Amino acid sequence: MFTTFRGGQSGGWKVTSIARIKGETLPKVAALSVIASEAIALPLLPSQTAWRLAGVASHLRYTEKAEKEQLAAVQAGLGRSEATQAALIPIRKSAAWWELTQDERRQIFEDKSHHISGTLKYLPAIARQLYHSRDLGVPFDFLTWFEFAPEHAALFDELVAMLRATEEWNYVEREVDVRVEREI
Amino acid sequence: MFTTFRGGQSGGWKVTSIARIKGETLPKVAALSVIASEAIALPLLPSQTAWRLAGVASHLRYTEKAEKEQLAAVQAGLGRSEATQAALIPIRKSAAWWELTQDERRQIFEDKSHHISGTLKYLPAIARQLYHSRDLGVPFDFLTWFEFAPEHAALFDELVAMLRATEEWNYVEREVDVRVEREI
Repeated sequence: MFTTFRGGQSGGWKVTSIARIKGETLPKVAALSVIASEAIALPLLPSQTAWRLAGVASHLRYTEKAEKEQLAAVQAGLGRSEATQAALIPIRKSAAWWELTQDERRQIFEDKSHHISGTLKYLPAIARQLYHSRDLGVPFDFLTWFEFAPEHAALFDELVAMLRATEEWNYVEREVDVRVEREI
Repeated sequence: MFTTFRGGQSGGWKVTSIARIKGETLPKVAALSVIASEAIALPLLPSQTAWRLAGVASHLRYTEKAEKEQLAAVQAGLGRSEATQAALIPIRKSAAWWELTQDERRQIFEDKSHHISGTLKYLPAIARQLYHSRDLGVPFDFLTWFEFAPEHAALFDELVAMLRATEEWNYVEREVDVRVEREI
């Protein structure tokens, strides 16, 4: 099952901002739609009026057993009715990151950057799903998607600021921050 | 970049056997071709006379730094002129495997099954490349490809027998063993 994020003129989410964090940004669009499909043609062809990014909700790559249990205990699912705001944050990491071995990546990811333990306190409020894109030849490695209620928007800003200050983020070479609101 | 293995009537490799190891086998074909492409439509559509499997040569998922260095010191590249025999062994692991966390998979993969250390001695003779298929929605998780000279065919049989006897292989639910010879 593939998940495609399409930025265009219409969609279930109204785009409120597209911010360039690092590297090249994405073209400005009015709306975002999220499409699940069993079939896909890769690479995704660019268009004049829209962009598309696809990923796969895959298995966990770094999380250890105790962490998985902690996460399961506190995390919320996507699609909560009160979560009317969301963020799509596509990220590409550098070649230097991918040349690291599993133990080196894990050390930076958690032992130094506390990616899992540091984000736990945000999870009851902020639901998230990671989509893997790297093996699909998409210009990003990951598409990260977050859903939250308007009253947690500041908490979400705190979460991404915390993650962007970690050692792991030194390996990010492209990042765009797309904020959206559910169309009522 | 995607790599597609196509079993059909013609191709650079003549199929000498297709053995069902576990689960459903693949249809009998005369030849195998290996195609690299930047574009692909998924899922791969079945045909009456051929089958296609696609994967991506991705980054290392379990190998640690010291192991990577050991591997680099002994492994051979694909395409050696003397390596006129090859094997395509597509594998699907069970849902139970993918529900394990990284530390649990690594423990079974290496600490118990010695997947890396146990295979080191075979590597100067046997060149191999792992292609990841799971995120492409292919009916296998991995396409493993091995190339070797005819005098190392018995050594290769020893290698796969060793791997199939490990704890890790309990999580394999589908495996087919396709042997081929280079068309001269």
